Amino acid sequence: MSTIPAPLDPPSRVLMGPGPSDVPPEILQALARPCIGHLDPAFVEIMDQNKGMLRQVFGTDNAMTLPMSGTGSAGMETLLVNLVEPGDRVLVGVNGVFGGRMCEVARRCGAEVVRVEAPWGRALSPDAFRARAEGRRFKLVAVVHAETSTGARTDLQGFRELADDLGALLAVDCVTSLGGIPVELDAHGVDAAYSGTQKCLSVPPGLAPVSLSERAMAAVAARRSPVASWYLDLSLLASYWGGQKRAYHHTAPVNMNYALHAGLRLALEEGLPTRYARHQLHAAALRQGLLALGLDLPVPEAERLPQLTLVAAPAGVDEAAVRAFLLQQVGLEIGGGLGDFAGKAWRIGLMGASCSRRHVSLCLSGLHQALRAQGWKAPHDPLSAAAGVYEARVAP
Amino acid sequence: MSTIPAPLDPPSRVLMGPGPSDVPPEILQALARPCIGHLDPAFVEIMDQNKGMLRQVFGTDNAMTLPMSGTGSAGMETLLVNLVEPGDRVLVGVNGVFGGRMCEVARRCGAEVVRVEAPWGRALSPDAFRARAEGRRFKLVAVVHAETSTGARTDLQGFRELADDLGALLAVDCVTSLGGIPVELDAHGVDAAYSGTQKCLSVPPGLAPVSLSERAMAAVAARRSPVASWYLDLSLLASYWGGQKRAYHHTAPVNMNYALHAGLRLALEEGLPTRYARHQLHAAALRQGLLALGLDLPVPEAERLPQLTLVAAPAGVDEAAVRAFLLQQVGLEIGGGLGDFAGKAWRIGLMGASCSRRHVSLCLSGLHQALRAQGWKAPHDPLSAAAGVYEARVAP
Repeated sequence: MSTIPAPLDPPSRVLMGPGPSDVPPEILQALARPCIGHLDPAFVEIMDQNKGMLRQVFGTDNAMTLPMSGTGSAGMETLLVNLVEPGDRVLVGVNGVFGGRMCEVARRCGAEVVRVEAPWGRALSPDAFRARAEGRRFKLVAVVHAETSTGARTDLQGFRELADDLGALLAVDCVTSLGGIPVELDAHGVDAAYSGTQKCLSVPPGLAPVSLSERAMAAVAARRSPVASWYLDLSLLASYWGGQKRAYHHTAPVNMNYALHAGLRLALEEGLPTRYARHQLHAAALRQGLLALGLDLPVPEAERLPQLTLVAAPAGVDEAAVRAFLLQQVGLEIGGGLGDFAGKAWRIGLMGASCSRRHVSLCLSGLHQALRAQGWKAPHDPLSAAAGVYEARVAP
Repeated sequence: MSTIPAPLDPPSRVLMGPGPSDVPPEILQALARPCIGHLDPAFVEIMDQNKGMLRQVFGTDNAMTLPMSGTGSAGMETLLVNLVEPGDRVLVGVNGVFGGRMCEVARRCGAEVVRVEAPWGRALSPDAFRARAEGRRFKLVAVVHAETSTGARTDLQGFRELADDLGALLAVDCVTSLGGIPVELDAHGVDAAYSGTQKCLSVPPGLAPVSLSERAMAAVAARRSPVASWYLDLSLLASYWGGQKRAYHHTAPVNMNYALHAGLRLALEEGLPTRYARHQLHAAALRQGLLALGLDLPVPEAERLPQLTLVAAPAGVDEAAVRAFLLQQVGLEIGGGLGDFAGKAWRIGLMGASCSRRHVSLCLSGLHQALRAQGWKAPHDPLSAAAGVYEARVAP
């Protein structure tokens, strides 16, 4: 028998987890424009504009810059499956879930994987990579710019020189950094990067922007073996997303590309420096509020991402109950911890459209109430602490 | 310098190509509902409902039925990368682009691929597979139910017996069939199937519904080697889309899953038998109109898909100019030929919401004008011919 559920009616949420972030109305409206064909000249123009705007946000002139038709993890897999061949040696920084995932994906590509470990919640440095390399040469060095599982930021400075010393390509996970902090692929000499749409671009999940340098694409062209994935094969995709003929490869997610177009426009209209400053400002206010609540921030200050803050759950506080309280009583989503921080921490996102004084205020007041329900006594007033940050700076 | 394109303004099109098809307003509205978290209990409920509705449309009880986070080709790759291991022998029917693509994807999985060829535009039979098998055993038999590149329909009757004889799993491409003609996986003993959303479900492209039998999942569990793709690894996905814990794997395309929900509801509310009859009726009318225009339909009548009709471009008529005329003058998209039919034929879709008397009428009148502009004299009035079909039947 046919069973038909009621029409969907998703609840109203404020999204302050590690992504997805709140999607602005302009982007939802773009998403709902009528679908057109994936080879329609009008869609080809939208593809070209998306490539151009992605280049600006990535800070690159790379011709091979496009949104892959999958979510962020498909972007990771795109880079590795195209750049790594069986037997290649790769050096991967692991300071959270996503570095670990890169190792697993590279292993499935047949790579010899060398892990550069750092404690969860800490950044990685080129020196740590160099020490672990032990003088060997590598096909690829991979680093997570913004670790979504911990909120730790690894400075890209010095990684190009490291990669050159090891004879390697430099690949960077920008899933949570793109649109929230400067990425600047060309300035940092990054050969390959991937991201997702649902973090600091505030577009729904479903596309994975990637960018590859000429050197990286030369490595793809010089492969001895076919790319294991047909769907993610960049040499096939190049003729759909570029070239004269626009040869059909697969049917691109047309409406998701509309949404990306709207999201990139919003980012560029705001201006990237203004956008980055906005993330810095509200992160500073949020942190002062969290400290006023008596909470610890496990990531050292110099290594914190503005767009994602890791907060330790105090002993005696049930972190899952706090998240449930926020979701059910306040309609606010924050994230739980992963890996070393599972059950021990929260992750609070201030990403894209979810980064405003309204978001900071709601989160601090919600947390205050949720912690109070758990018997936690806040030593100070978090909203006054946050207000102090806004008063000390010229708020946008 | 920052270059910001104007807000997107996609043109109004009527989509009668091989997909995407017209997306109904209910689906566009669902797409534009506010995004919520991919682990939100409310989203988990939507995931469960999508699985349940997909089972109904696929005609299966398979627990492992879910929309993969990519387009139809990602669904193809999902099946092959999970079911095929290096050295496995697979038997693939090739009567168009998508059979050929399955061979290529299987080859990249390390399979020994045996092709069962049929002329483009013709169906395949179990006997053709049996003859080509030459008594060998196979890991997988793969067949395209509805060849999107030609509009040929291969009857699934007899393929289960064939697969049993060869000791093989049976995999079926249902990209263009799902929602337009009966698929009935369980009745046909299909072990694994994939589809896309942008054909007869009239949801924008971006998801790939797949369904795998217990036997197929047992084969995945018994693999000797890891699945080459982490992103498409079904044993990892099973715990996100099923199971008690809903462990995070990747961030599902939340809004695309809203759209799928709305599209599946529309299909089930119409009723599948009614929906299939609608496709048959309008296809019959379209064909009478095309014949009245003096055009040839290269696929034999018994092997034609109602939802996609291949039409030969007459000698002396520039097929690309006809498509350009339709797109520019009428706002109507039809498809060109692929492979053996490139430059020689059109593909006219009547899929999902693009399957109505309005669509048939517009297409025939548009084609009439476009052909006239090329000097082609239609022997009969296509609209009267189509009307005759409607008058002879009880039109819905």
